[in-house]
Amino acid sequence: MAGVRAAVVGTGLIGGSLLLRLRDAGLDVTGWDPDPVARGHVRRWGVACPDAVEAAVTGRDAVFLCGPLPTLSGMLARVAAATPEHCVLTDVGSTKAEVAATATASGLGHRFVPGHPMAGADRAGPAAADPGLLVGAAWVLCPGPNGLASFRRLAALLIEVFEARVVPMSAPEHDAAAALSSHVPHLLAGALAGAVQRSTLRDAVLSLAAGSFTDGTRVAGGPPQRTANMLLGNRDRVLSGLASVRAMLDELADALRAADAGTLTDRLAEGRAARATLGERRFDTHQREFPAPADHAGELDYLRALGAAGGHLTGCRTAGGAVTYTGQLPHTPDPA
Amino acid sequence: MAGVRAAVVGTGLIGGSLLLRLRDAGLDVTGWDPDPVARGHVRRWGVACPDAVEAAVTGRDAVFLCGPLPTLSGMLARVAAATPEHCVLTDVGSTKAEVAATATASGLGHRFVPGHPMAGADRAGPAAADPGLLVGAAWVLCPGPNGLASFRRLAALLIEVFEARVVPMSAPEHDAAAALSSHVPHLLAGALAGAVQRSTLRDAVLSLAAGSFTDGTRVAGGPPQRTANMLLGNRDRVLSGLASVRAMLDELADALRAADAGTLTDRLAEGRAARATLGERRFDTHQREFPAPADHAGELDYLRALGAAGGHLTGCRTAGGAVTYTGQLPHTPDPA
Repeated sequence: MAGVRAAVVGTGLIGGSLLLRLRDAGLDVTGWDPDPVARGHVRRWGVACPDAVEAAVTGRDAVFLCGPLPTLSGMLARVAAATPEHCVLTDVGSTKAEVAATATASGLGHRFVPGHPMAGADRAGPAAADPGLLVGAAWVLCPGPNGLASFRRLAALLIEVFEARVVPMSAPEHDAAAALSSHVPHLLAGALAGAVQRSTLRDAVLSLAAGSFTDGTRVAGGPPQRTANMLLGNRDRVLSGLASVRAMLDELADALRAADAGTLTDRLAEGRAARATLGERRFDTHQREFPAPADHAGELDYLRALGAAGGHLTGCRTAGGAVTYTGQLPHTPDPA
Repeated sequence: MAGVRAAVVGTGLIGGSLLLRLRDAGLDVTGWDPDPVARGHVRRWGVACPDAVEAAVTGRDAVFLCGPLPTLSGMLARVAAATPEHCVLTDVGSTKAEVAATATASGLGHRFVPGHPMAGADRAGPAAADPGLLVGAAWVLCPGPNGLASFRRLAALLIEVFEARVVPMSAPEHDAAAALSSHVPHLLAGALAGAVQRSTLRDAVLSLAAGSFTDGTRVAGGPPQRTANMLLGNRDRVLSGLASVRAMLDELADALRAADAGTLTDRLAEGRAARATLGERRFDTHQREFPAPADHAGELDYLRALGAAGGHLTGCRTAGGAVTYTGQLPHTPDPA
């Protein structure tokens, strides 16, 4: 990867962390941010950061778009126009269907691979950037039917540089899963923290706050505008995921109201089962090979099925006329 | 404190952690648990653990009742009957109004000080016990009108042995605050984890689980029976706290449904303010003295007002005919 020329557009928490790791891995990297203060930050890291985005991305092999969601489509067009045809483009936004559709409609489906690293922090800006933030993260990529060559190159880079667990998914499936795994949890955290803020008992509640409250509200400490953009970008799926959580909450509250200890315990046990699965997941490793001039349908089917089943890639190697994926699938115990 | 003879009744996660710390601090300590396996555990720690609870508590100066909530009232009566009049009794249950009323009705108000250390883990049993678990915790104590002498002795012990931040509160006020700071967060975690467990996307959701989901569901990994008991023991206040969180959630969902970015951001900012307060709390230290044969009304008023304002005690010293409290109150910036 040492010869790869990369650029990071938007050098806040995620973009800055990404840029620092790429630099530390020995890649030739440039940065850009609309904010001159952020550009100054990047330059103090010893990284080239021109005033114009076109100057930052020209001649690059890979560009990571890390700006705010609402600016993404516009920036994609600008960067695509300023980069060579072989340059892979990706983003790190928290929703994928809309930007994937925009890219396809703009004729960029072969170059743009929608991405979403599952990592973050309740801080923001380049000062919070940390080269370790994205290391080892689950990193969703959404390969399209004519974007497999770009997907392979990007997946190989993320695995090598970030030790990423690359989760291949269709963009709509990502958005539905992310609604439950990330967006609804932000809403719940905001509702809990907000209700306490409004409570006449606020000071007493905060002084009793132990694990369940501090953990359950951690993401409510993030920038409200960033969280709002994330929720708005996946509105319908967030509302639908929220409805399923509310239905479960209704069942819990009904059992509590009825003082029905048995039902309450049973419902709580369902949630515990999800937690137990999360804590104990083991994976079985396999390898799959596809011809290098991509066998689109079969390869895409394999990748999307892997992600839908809770699996991920830990290897992607193209050599000798073939691509070889190393895949990890959740271990299913043999029936006894 | 080296001369204090203490006993811990119920040696699971909390009781076992408490016992280990008391022992490490040099106190003479005994244990008891209804489960012979747990008693074996305690004996392997080198701590006396008779088969009968009466044998474990006889002649003790302080007894910590750490069994399950539904058994608490019965155990309180048994232990009270087996201990001398000067022996301070306390518990660690997550709700306080009911047990406080029971103790008062049984004529134990002068000896029983309801307690609740704000610490825990998603494991259970003596094998999960850890002498550091309760160190530095906020530890609610609910002094009653004729229990101030016992409160002083217990507060001094907790501050010395556990470096506790002792939060004095009335039992009903504790229960209302704990509903929001601990019980409702358990319901939200259970609803989120349970909805994912039921989702057809479960495996994909779990593979994308990053901070917001793993943090937001952590307490859903605890024993369902224990959580159910906790919720049932504070039912009305939990349902009322949940209603306030649902009202906030409705406002967030309405703003999201209407794609009203401004309102959504404003509502999220309310929650962020609570988190900011939590992260940045500083305290102003003060001292207050009361005559040693307790000045009940004034002393009780001072203590309860301290807890209601989000404050706590870090010192409690009885000497020379007076008790001196070192209190910490949240810092209020001077108006500029």
